[in-house]
Amino acid sequence: MKSKLKVGIIGAGRIGKMHAENIKRYFSEEVEIISIADIFADKILDWANSIGVSRVYKDHRAVLENKEIDAVLICSSTDTHSQFIIEAAQEGKHIFCEKPIDFNVEKIKQALSEVEKAGVKLQIGFQRRFDPHFRKMKQMILEGKIGEMHILKITSRDPEPPPIDYIKVSGGIFLDMTIHDFDMARYLTGSEVEEVFAVANVLVDPKIGEVGDVDTAIVTLKFKNGVLGVIDNSRKSVYGYDQRIEVFGSKGSLSVGNELNTNVVYSGDGGILSDKPKYFFIERYKEAYIEEIKAFIDAIINDKETPVTGIDGLEPVLIGLAAKKSLEEKRAVKVER
Amino acid sequence: MKSKLKVGIIGAGRIGKMHAENIKRYFSEEVEIISIADIFADKILDWANSIGVSRVYKDHRAVLENKEIDAVLICSSTDTHSQFIIEAAQEGKHIFCEKPIDFNVEKIKQALSEVEKAGVKLQIGFQRRFDPHFRKMKQMILEGKIGEMHILKITSRDPEPPPIDYIKVSGGIFLDMTIHDFDMARYLTGSEVEEVFAVANVLVDPKIGEVGDVDTAIVTLKFKNGVLGVIDNSRKSVYGYDQRIEVFGSKGSLSVGNELNTNVVYSGDGGILSDKPKYFFIERYKEAYIEEIKAFIDAIINDKETPVTGIDGLEPVLIGLAAKKSLEEKRAVKVER
Amino acid sequence: MKSKLKVGIIGAGRIGKMHAENIKRYFSEEVEIISIADIFADKILDWANSIGVSRVYKDHRAVLENKEIDAVLICSSTDTHSQFIIEAAQEGKHIFCEKPIDFNVEKIKQALSEVEKAGVKLQIGFQRRFDPHFRKMKQMILEGKIGEMHILKITSRDPEPPPIDYIKVSGGIFLDMTIHDFDMARYLTGSEVEEVFAVANVLVDPKIGEVGDVDTAIVTLKFKNGVLGVIDNSRKSVYGYDQRIEVFGSKGSLSVGNELNTNVVYSGDGGILSDKPKYFFIERYKEAYIEEIKAFIDAIINDKETPVTGIDGLEPVLIGLAAKKSLEEKRAVKVER
Amino acid sequence: MKSKLKVGIIGAGRIGKMHAENIKRYFSEEVEIISIADIFADKILDWANSIGVSRVYKDHRAVLENKEIDAVLICSSTDTHSQFIIEAAQEGKHIFCEKPIDFNVEKIKQALSEVEKAGVKLQIGFQRRFDPHFRKMKQMILEGKIGEMHILKITSRDPEPPPIDYIKVSGGIFLDMTIHDFDMARYLTGSEVEEVFAVANVLVDPKIGEVGDVDTAIVTLKFKNGVLGVIDNSRKSVYGYDQRIEVFGSKGSLSVGNELNTNVVYSGDGGILSDKPKYFFIERYKEAYIEEIKAFIDAIINDKETPVTGIDGLEPVLIGLAAKKSLEEKRAVKVER
Repeated sequence: MKSKLKVGIIGAGRIGKMHAENIKRYFSEEVEIISIADIFADKILDWANSIGVSRVYKDHRAVLENKEIDAVLICSSTDTHSQFIIEAAQEGKHIFCEKPIDFNVEKIKQALSEVEKAGVKLQIGFQRRFDPHFRKMKQMILEGKIGEMHILKITSRDPEPPPIDYIKVSGGIFLDMTIHDFDMARYLTGSEVEEVFAVANVLVDPKIGEVGDVDTAIVTLKFKNGVLGVIDNSRKSVYGYDQRIEVFGSKGSLSVGNELNTNVVYSGDGGILSDKPKYFFIERYKEAYIEEIKAFIDAIINDKETPVTGIDGLEPVLIGLAAKKSLEEKRAVKVER
Repeated sequence: MKSKLKVGIIGAGRIGKMHAENIKRYFSEEVEIISIADIFADKILDWANSIGVSRVYKDHRAVLENKEIDAVLICSSTDTHSQFIIEAAQEGKHIFCEKPIDFNVEKIKQALSEVEKAGVKLQIGFQRRFDPHFRKMKQMILEGKIGEMHILKITSRDPEPPPIDYIKVSGGIFLDMTIHDFDMARYLTGSEVEEVFAVANVLVDPKIGEVGDVDTAIVTLKFKNGVLGVIDNSRKSVYGYDQRIEVFGSKGSLSVGNELNTNVVYSGDGGILSDKPKYFFIERYKEAYIEEIKAFIDAIINDKETPVTGIDGLEPVLIGLAAKKSLEEKRAVKVER
Repeated sequence: MKSKLKVGIIGAGRIGKMHAENIKRYFSEEVEIISIADIFADKILDWANSIGVSRVYKDHRAVLENKEIDAVLICSSTDTHSQFIIEAAQEGKHIFCEKPIDFNVEKIKQALSEVEKAGVKLQIGFQRRFDPHFRKMKQMILEGKIGEMHILKITSRDPEPPPIDYIKVSGGIFLDMTIHDFDMARYLTGSEVEEVFAVANVLVDPKIGEVGDVDTAIVTLKFKNGVLGVIDNSRKSVYGYDQRIEVFGSKGSLSVGNELNTNVVYSGDGGILSDKPKYFFIERYKEAYIEEIKAFIDAIINDKETPVTGIDGLEPVLIGLAAKKSLEEKRAVKVER
Repeated sequence: MKSKLKVGIIGAGRIGKMHAENIKRYFSEEVEIISIADIFADKILDWANSIGVSRVYKDHRAVLENKEIDAVLICSSTDTHSQFIIEAAQEGKHIFCEKPIDFNVEKIKQALSEVEKAGVKLQIGFQRRFDPHFRKMKQMILEGKIGEMHILKITSRDPEPPPIDYIKVSGGIFLDMTIHDFDMARYLTGSEVEEVFAVANVLVDPKIGEVGDVDTAIVTLKFKNGVLGVIDNSRKSVYGYDQRIEVFGSKGSLSVGNELNTNVVYSGDGGILSDKPKYFFIERYKEAYIEEIKAFIDAIINDKETPVTGIDGLEPVLIGLAAKKSLEEKRAVKVER
């Protein structure tokens, strides 16, 4: 393929902007951003100009109907994902879609069915799989370093809760936040989750409870291959984004700790002080966000399967729904497929 | 109190011997070991001589009936604990008893009732509370360093499983192994466990499954004060005893990692290699075992409450029984009191 | 300044190529590479094309005489630096020059004098100053975190020695390798070196000794402000590039350790294994190389002083020459200015 | 040997008391303390009683002339060491003597000569050799883990300077403080120091300068086997006793860091805070002090050579004197033997 891949971006919030800027900075040789659609189109004009994109629309159809465009990045709000996937597939565009596809399993299945029918590529935005540390961990698991896996532990805590208005429409902590951990769990174990048990509480902010969500949770997972897993989440960690994973098996364990801002260590009369972890996902997964786009481009250009498929988008939602049910019913819940 | 405290030891297996040797080495000034009872009395004669104890009996009554003796250490097998506590209390002896008191709640309650009736002191052998790292952690929690506690995480993995014959009579992993973690959970949260959920599997050795036990487990705890807790256990960790705790709260987190054999670090062409964690509980809790005896002696000499009471012996058994039930019924189980 | 800054590159070896690619990838918005000169011009044509540069010359004059060009990056061999600086200054170009300027102090002074006469900007390629860890360290020193500085320690070891042919013309370990450490020493102490003492040996490869150089060295520095410093160097560290710095003062110490390839940690029956440090300077100072070019561009566009001046290029050479003399004469040698 | 080894202690300051208490606590089975001499005999009576020693004298001869006594520990002030060694040897006592033997080489040689003539055992109190971390490091060096050693680095900083009155008679930093590092250097390299170069300054407290000493120093060592070494010292480290060693060689490096008070780590909004290093030598080398006495007892009981001989007492003094001369003459100084 000699000519550049032509892409459109739907939704230019924080994540959409980041993807656009990464494409501009790192993949200008291979990719050209043709147009951007956002419901607040007039507010993003200056930013779009700054990265050399002049065609900015309010209506996503303007992007989808452009015959010139090969692929779209769907970065709009979750409630639009499944519909936009369907429309994009029908227009024959390859699709990169932010997580989650939807909170409704039927809608997801319908979207995946349209994607299959259209024969386009679909990649879901689970960027953590592209983090160099977790990738190395996965590789070492495959090399047999820990033998047979027995236990998987994921710690995942945000530096601060999103606005209450966001939480209201977020689908709840399991579908909004833990969903990334469910994806990592599947990725690292190489197995599907069979059964889920969740406990949770409102400990960070009572307002989160008032809108029907929780802010602190522990989710236990039982995998088909026998592995036992546990995820702990908090919406507020004062020391920054806490992203640690440990896998334990018959021959040893592997762990990945937090990336710190710098490795300067201060020894003073109060003790030995290291720097804080990187603040949040934008900082922590900087490289992973670039790598996932690189993989998407590579899948299209070289006609390969995308590394995070539609099933990878569906499964974490199924697990999240089971977690919700478990929390309500105080019992282990099987993941229904 | 001028004259030495006079103690007898019942049961001279690994733990009983260790306590006797610690008393000999560290508390000779304050304590004299008068006699030792063990069902294999003839096999421990040489050892008893080596620590200057000449009176060795097969029958524990020989120790209990000696008027000279102020206190006994019950280090015999678990099935004798509650009975020996009752007998010792009736003889007016202060009692240090290894964990667990019993697997049967009624027997425990009966034993505690006899202790109360007799007005003697009782201390249960949960030595981890005396570990300098966990003690400092507890102190920092009390100082408010982490604000309000939200999450407690305990990792507790043995370097290798005990013999199958032991596992058969051990009461199962929750009453034999996790019981220490239940104690730490109560100690660090300062709250009682309300509800338990357990998942488990046989991943280390199928023989453990054949005798009706599991070897890998994750137990989720919900505390009265709202804290969520999780414990993960394995009967076999190839890198040694894995004993880590993390508490997370509104103002930060505290963690205690493993003690390593030495802090020598080797950097070679294969990477950066640190020493392994200390092998097992005898090595890891060396200082804690000394400190718990020191506290027991102190409680008697200065007529203070023991730092690990009968209730502290009962509660972890209740939690363990709830965990067992949860595992069978695949649901959250309330701790019944 | 609306139009792009136009630069030429002289010397397209490993470092020259890296700078060109960084400019292309990160600074395309602000900078355009007009032409490249290299004595092996025919061998770099493909590479030059790949970054969109079509004008490639054998003769550096072709770059210097192009009126369109605002600034040049001198990345050719050390023996050409001072001459090319002079010529570039006479052509009115701003200059970024790799270290060292020269081994001959007179030639350096002459070059700096021409730069001053021409009123162009000069920045020397001491990229370590732009490393985020060392920058943070410097900032914390300035904030008074360690009080008054007493001791500075730099560990600087290469993963493997350069080819013997390179060592022959390298100026010796002090002017080739330690020179970066001398720069860091000046940067972090904020003071000039008064006296130097060096010990050294040939321990890595006898061939290095045969061409009159050493491969292992310890250099002690006494600074004007009273700080004592020590640098240890080795040409061969099997675990990778070893770049650590520690500053110690009246109120504490600051240290920067190595950046590792990943933060995956493996615990197995042989111990606890962390990843190796990044392999060499290209990997370790990836970000610093980008930042130094950014600072150079910024200095030109906004007419500011460059952050690494001609004096910063001269001083480390003076220290290196003093170290050489100290090694020969087995005594402390004053840095002559 | 059935009966207990009988020892006397000369000098009951901080170190003498510690040795006596260690013998009492850990070696009561094998050793009996017969008597103690101290110039302030009346002030130590209560303490002596507390460890069961009733014979306390002002005059050291009362200890030495007691035929019952097999061995003495000389823990009095440095100026008495060589004289007391001579007298003890003449009385046929085995000798444990604190470091340094003397500041005067002739006196040391005379003392060693008397020891040899008498055929008694002599062990010098360089306890760091018995530290478990450094011992493991030594063992790994002997196992060839780092191949051929190239560089040795010792960091050794005290938490606070001794009183000025002590400094006046201390022999200076090199003979009082660095002498321990010189011993470690010989121990770990297994080689003798050939040449020394020292720089130093008064940065901690001007009063130290007023009495003719320095408080901050860097000493470079060249060993007979080609190894290059460096020691950095400070009399005041606000974060506690800083005792780190690194050895670097053809196949890798080994390092030993500080022992911390506990391994509790606090993550808060200011960063990640670890505990401070152990405060000073009494805390840091607790185990080493016990082990050195154990080795001394073992050497006597089993008639073996002591692990720290008279030559091990002499050499560090020779190196210290060379360092002093180097500082004055600003040149490398050969260690004279």
